[in-house]
Amino acid sequence: MMRNPPSQYIVARPLYSEDSFKEDNERVQRRHKSLLNHVKEYFSCSSKRAKNAGLSLLPIIGWIRIYRIKEWLLSDIVSGLSTGLVAVLQGLAFALLASVPAGYGLYTAFFPVLTYFFLGTSRHISVGPFPVLSLMVGSVVMRIVPENGTQANITAFEGLSLQDKQVMVAASVTFLVGIFQLALGLLQIGFIVIYMSDTLVSGFTTAAAVHILVSQLKFILGLTVRGENGAFAIIRTLESIFSQITKTNIPDLVTSIIIMVVVFIVKELNDRFKAKLPVPIPIEVIMTVIACGVSYAFDFQTLYGVSVVGKLKEGYESPMAPNLEILQLSVMDAFSMAIVAFAIAFSVAKVYSVKHDYLIDGNQELIAFGVSNIFGASFRSFAACTSLSRSAVQESTGGKTQIAGLLSAMVAMIVTVGIGFLLEPLQTSVLGALVVVNLKGMLMQVREIPYLWKKDKPDCIVWVVTFVASIFLGLDLGLAVGLGIELLTVVFRTQFPRCSVLANIKGTDIYRDRKDYLSIYEPDGVKIFRIPSPIFFANIEFFRDKLNAAVGFNPLRILRKRNKALRKIKKLLKNGELQITPKGLLYTGSAPIEESEDESNMEDLDQPTDFAGLPVQINWNTDLPGNITVPRIDIHSIILDFAAVSFLDMSGINGLKMTLKEFTRVEVDVYIVACDCYILDKLHECGFFDNEIKTSIFFLTLHDAMLCILEKHPDHTEDLKASKNNYHSFKVSQGSGSLRKRESEVPDPETKF
Amino acid sequence: MMRNPPSQYIVARPLYSEDSFKEDNERVQRRHKSLLNHVKEYFSCSSKRAKNAGLSLLPIIGWIRIYRIKEWLLSDIVSGLSTGLVAVLQGLAFALLASVPAGYGLYTAFFPVLTYFFLGTSRHISVGPFPVLSLMVGSVVMRIVPENGTQANITAFEGLSLQDKQVMVAASVTFLVGIFQLALGLLQIGFIVIYMSDTLVSGFTTAAAVHILVSQLKFILGLTVRGENGAFAIIRTLESIFSQITKTNIPDLVTSIIIMVVVFIVKELNDRFKAKLPVPIPIEVIMTVIACGVSYAFDFQTLYGVSVVGKLKEGYESPMAPNLEILQLSVMDAFSMAIVAFAIAFSVAKVYSVKHDYLIDGNQELIAFGVSNIFGASFRSFAACTSLSRSAVQESTGGKTQIAGLLSAMVAMIVTVGIGFLLEPLQTSVLGALVVVNLKGMLMQVREIPYLWKKDKPDCIVWVVTFVASIFLGLDLGLAVGLGIELLTVVFRTQFPRCSVLANIKGTDIYRDRKDYLSIYEPDGVKIFRIPSPIFFANIEFFRDKLNAAVGFNPLRILRKRNKALRKIKKLLKNGELQITPKGLLYTGSAPIEESEDESNMEDLDQPTDFAGLPVQINWNTDLPGNITVPRIDIHSIILDFAAVSFLDMSGINGLKMTLKEFTRVEVDVYIVACDCYILDKLHECGFFDNEIKTSIFFLTLHDAMLCILEKHPDHTEDLKASKNNYHSFKVSQGSGSLRKRESEVPDPETKF
Repeated sequence: MMRNPPSQYIVARPLYSEDSFKEDNERVQRRHKSLLNHVKEYFSCSSKRAKNAGLSLLPIIGWIRIYRIKEWLLSDIVSGLSTGLVAVLQGLAFALLASVPAGYGLYTAFFPVLTYFFLGTSRHISVGPFPVLSLMVGSVVMRIVPENGTQANITAFEGLSLQDKQVMVAASVTFLVGIFQLALGLLQIGFIVIYMSDTLVSGFTTAAAVHILVSQLKFILGLTVRGENGAFAIIRTLESIFSQITKTNIPDLVTSIIIMVVVFIVKELNDRFKAKLPVPIPIEVIMTVIACGVSYAFDFQTLYGVSVVGKLKEGYESPMAPNLEILQLSVMDAFSMAIVAFAIAFSVAKVYSVKHDYLIDGNQELIAFGVSNIFGASFRSFAACTSLSRSAVQESTGGKTQIAGLLSAMVAMIVTVGIGFLLEPLQTSVLGALVVVNLKGMLMQVREIPYLWKKDKPDCIVWVVTFVASIFLGLDLGLAVGLGIELLTVVFRTQFPRCSVLANIKGTDIYRDRKDYLSIYEPDGVKIFRIPSPIFFANIEFFRDKLNAAVGFNPLRILRKRNKALRKIKKLLKNGELQITPKGLLYTGSAPIEESEDESNMEDLDQPTDFAGLPVQINWNTDLPGNITVPRIDIHSIILDFAAVSFLDMSGINGLKMTLKEFTRVEVDVYIVACDCYILDKLHECGFFDNEIKTSIFFLTLHDAMLCILEKHPDHTEDLKASKNNYHSFKVSQGSGSLRKRESEVPDPETKF
Repeated sequence: MMRNPPSQYIVARPLYSEDSFKEDNERVQRRHKSLLNHVKEYFSCSSKRAKNAGLSLLPIIGWIRIYRIKEWLLSDIVSGLSTGLVAVLQGLAFALLASVPAGYGLYTAFFPVLTYFFLGTSRHISVGPFPVLSLMVGSVVMRIVPENGTQANITAFEGLSLQDKQVMVAASVTFLVGIFQLALGLLQIGFIVIYMSDTLVSGFTTAAAVHILVSQLKFILGLTVRGENGAFAIIRTLESIFSQITKTNIPDLVTSIIIMVVVFIVKELNDRFKAKLPVPIPIEVIMTVIACGVSYAFDFQTLYGVSVVGKLKEGYESPMAPNLEILQLSVMDAFSMAIVAFAIAFSVAKVYSVKHDYLIDGNQELIAFGVSNIFGASFRSFAACTSLSRSAVQESTGGKTQIAGLLSAMVAMIVTVGIGFLLEPLQTSVLGALVVVNLKGMLMQVREIPYLWKKDKPDCIVWVVTFVASIFLGLDLGLAVGLGIELLTVVFRTQFPRCSVLANIKGTDIYRDRKDYLSIYEPDGVKIFRIPSPIFFANIEFFRDKLNAAVGFNPLRILRKRNKALRKIKKLLKNGELQITPKGLLYTGSAPIEESEDESNMEDLDQPTDFAGLPVQINWNTDLPGNITVPRIDIHSIILDFAAVSFLDMSGINGLKMTLKEFTRVEVDVYIVACDCYILDKLHECGFFDNEIKTSIFFLTLHDAMLCILEKHPDHTEDLKASKNNYHSFKVSQGSGSLRKRESEVPDPETKF
């Protein structure tokens, strides 16, 4: 795309203000739909729409019809079995995060998948427990039924064991998560996840990884640690762990370290030889089997007193209704879990949908997860979403549709109903070690901090604040704080933008910051002020200040001084102390005019200068009679460049109107250029224009306005007009002063054209 | 400012891309200060700076030196006495809002003024109780020491009477308000009040007026109502009032109605005859005196059992330390009170500073109010700010400086220490009636709703949400909700903007929405897409979708199809089933090419098309050999108009980069025009450019890019080139089709120029 030798940019057209442009080019009358029509259309119903809506509620109908049994079924079976093994392991491990007995993790890997199979639009994600979400469930469980502490006063708890209570809390909060997701999906407001920017999610999940790490320490060290919650819980937990570090169960620690080192190394090798290996080595499954065998053979439980998974409940328990009291206690948590779960699942699903080129529907995904969580909760499983690593297994081993997901659920079911006893001797420290070693990716996101700081400071601040708040305030409050900061950065970026004064690049119709270039032309008496952002409540005052600074005076103050001077002049005329001469007013009084502080009618001083009753016009920039003085203004026109003003709110419109009036009243013309049509329409709607502010101040481009101004003030017109056909004569830098004295150098444009 | 007959806009200059412009016009190297330098400068210290800082901390030094005793003192005395009378009345009335005995309102009209006199920068506001703030104090008092209910368990309460407890709570929370204000002032973050937009403040104060009205009902009706707090307290309070409406104390009600009617009418008259009256009739003072007299003469208290102000404590009590337990219970309330108090005071102060042309300093005002509240709280007064009506009295009766304020405080002091007994028989219903009748202005702000709805819907939503939330959730939570919604509207306004496809207005260098005009020119193969807002995390996906919709295809999908086709062609070539003929590739195989689903290396399909090893270049828009098909693309260039893109965050930059790559890989050139210099600098910093995305895609204006494109694709160049010197030939509408066939009509530009 290299540029050829410079071509020419040649334009000759009428000078256009918005008004004259409108005369020459008629605008098509387009009817924009009113809000009411939009709503009507949204709720209108035809048989076709009804059919589509029905189909979109059951996406399985769409993909099962095109299922290629011959090509896909085998892939799906292989993928389903591999994923199933991972799902079982993760289910057991993540159940520890959720503070429920390990067996319920298998429930979570089973029930939600059944409904997602029918309702989900993603064909590749593996539905089931997700560590961050499990931890959030766990924090609610620990708050309501702490292991050593006062439990919440809930009637339904009577006669239940601690484990039953934990399961009840986990299932109830999961039920509420499902309700929230279903409601958001039915109300079609799945779009709110776009507020979870990548930066926010990264900071949040890194903080979650830290929480997970801390929560697994007790399993790895074999300690009994009281569940903490609330702000700064993580500090209290660490304190509690380190205060009993001497009680560490050494066999647990050694097992964990061995597992972690081996799994870590093999995973690195898997990564490095990805291309050469037909399928990654399933090191976690292998290590679990070995650990089970060793633990069983040497009876670690009695020998070293390590804690083991123990007897899993065989088969499934009866369904359970959620407890209303628990729901009331966990509304906030459930809401943030609903959002987090959906945001994670949707972003993973999107990656695969882009890769395999099919469509997913955010709102339908919300409905699917909502129903799945409600269904799962009824059967005592805890909140499900998707795990990144498990979905990667499902996709990379060849999974084509959710049939693979269904098969992985079957594997979990078989373990639950049949071969669960094989896992009984497994140490919980092994599960903890497997969770921790998988945190590497999430924790490494910390490396984004220096990268973001270098590239975009506000984004970096969002990351750090979300991270810190999520660690210390807990995940739900941390997410809220992160969202608040994120919204603030958007406001902040537009709040203190770089305003600049522009000048013409000699010989062109281009205007740039006058501080940046040497070869520029600034006609006397004209200031071009660029507003590089929307104008709204948070920056309108900032702009007014900057504009006053750019022109070098406060128009309101000038107006008041002029009005005061006018009062004096009128008084002097009345007293006969002023004479009207052809050259202007002459002071004939003898005494010096006294400086009286006439503060009556202060408001009148802000009104337009009223020359009524005066026999002559006063030129404020010449000497006034007597010792009356007003500050001189050496500017006759201001151009406001609105190209980057993408919206104006009411505060912005009112502030702009006030500014325009103030300048107009001290006889400075203000022009607005490059204003968006829709903003102009809105100004009309809001009654922006009156007898002081006219539509004729709007021009199409900066150069149009400048040419118009130079025509009105012809004493230094030639320079810009000349630019039209011999730009070469301008190439030599002429210094940055005004070009008024160079008129003779420039050939008369008319003679040449 | 009427336009003269159209002048011409004539420009001839080289065609500029950002690169070539940079070559021709050297940019001045400006050193921007780094963050560190800013911080250093901020904390640097010179003797002059130290002196200025000292002076700015004691603004009194500034104005007392220029005090004109002769001219100002008399005005200040008159104003001080008038304001003092109002301050006494308001003090008594607003104390009822704060749920403390009436006498403490006089404290609040006295102590804070003393310190503000030295520290404040506003010369006209009257410091003292403000109804909304008093009500917020009252809600804390009612929460911690409800009149009939369980009081908070605070050690220091032992042995205190209810009134003492109330005063202790009010003073403690006031102390915390002061601490917050002082801290905000010292940290120089007074600017945060700009987030309190006019709309927000209007909605909030209207809700406060409703709360005040409800809280005064019990005094007007002479009922005993339990103080409610928390969400929906207002509903419970109204329920409680209406359930005992039959117990209304008729004499109280009658007195209130008389007072309200008289005061209302006289105030309307004051307003109407403002110009003719030397000073407004002080009707409130008159009515209070009459009511006092009548109540005393007929001994209403014993006769009708009305509640009266009763014995005021004579003189002042000893200072009191704030209670730490109460501070802990009221952190959130105190913070919102600190913000609200400052926002109100600052906005009133600003009005008068603009009117009388002096400077006020937001941070110094925060410090002044902070110190005043801390000082006041030590002497048992409650939170002070400024009342709009009282400040209006102080200014309109001629107050010039805070000496008037000091005198009004003296009046309050005299009442406290000397003549307080005169107010003993005053009915509290009279005070309630006076408060209610003054709410008119605040309640009438409801009229803004239809006005805002018509003009700016988001602003209207902010008003309504703030109002509703403040009424039902309480003032502190309501304010937080309002602020959140307000920030969301800013994001929302930029989130779903109107993207448009532009076209050239014939015969000009102007580009407008192609749907709006008839006489437009759209060269074949070029799409101009305008992005009318900043690009950031919340709208980058929206833009990518809109852009794909505008060009009519998804570049990634096209790329994949092409890469799949290429694989097939390579395979066919390898098998010898394709022959290279001069006309292209020819399929010589016999069997139809099978549709194989080769899903290995899905990622490779997203890479740039790799023609290596192919003997010929493939033109994707001609027929491919065999039955291989790829969708055709009829676009060769896209221009993105960045004029209104005021910032890009990291998500925006990454998304933009991805979009550019996708289009470049399907051989569509993307040009970006009118991009802000600072954004371009930032893109450089962020490593936006690589071997696929080059700086040469940036052009100065739309027309520059368009001319460049037409030069590269010369088959339909003439139309635009021609525009340079005979725009008249374009005036006649030519229909909206492509102009390719009209080449003969347009004179050759070169011959004429």
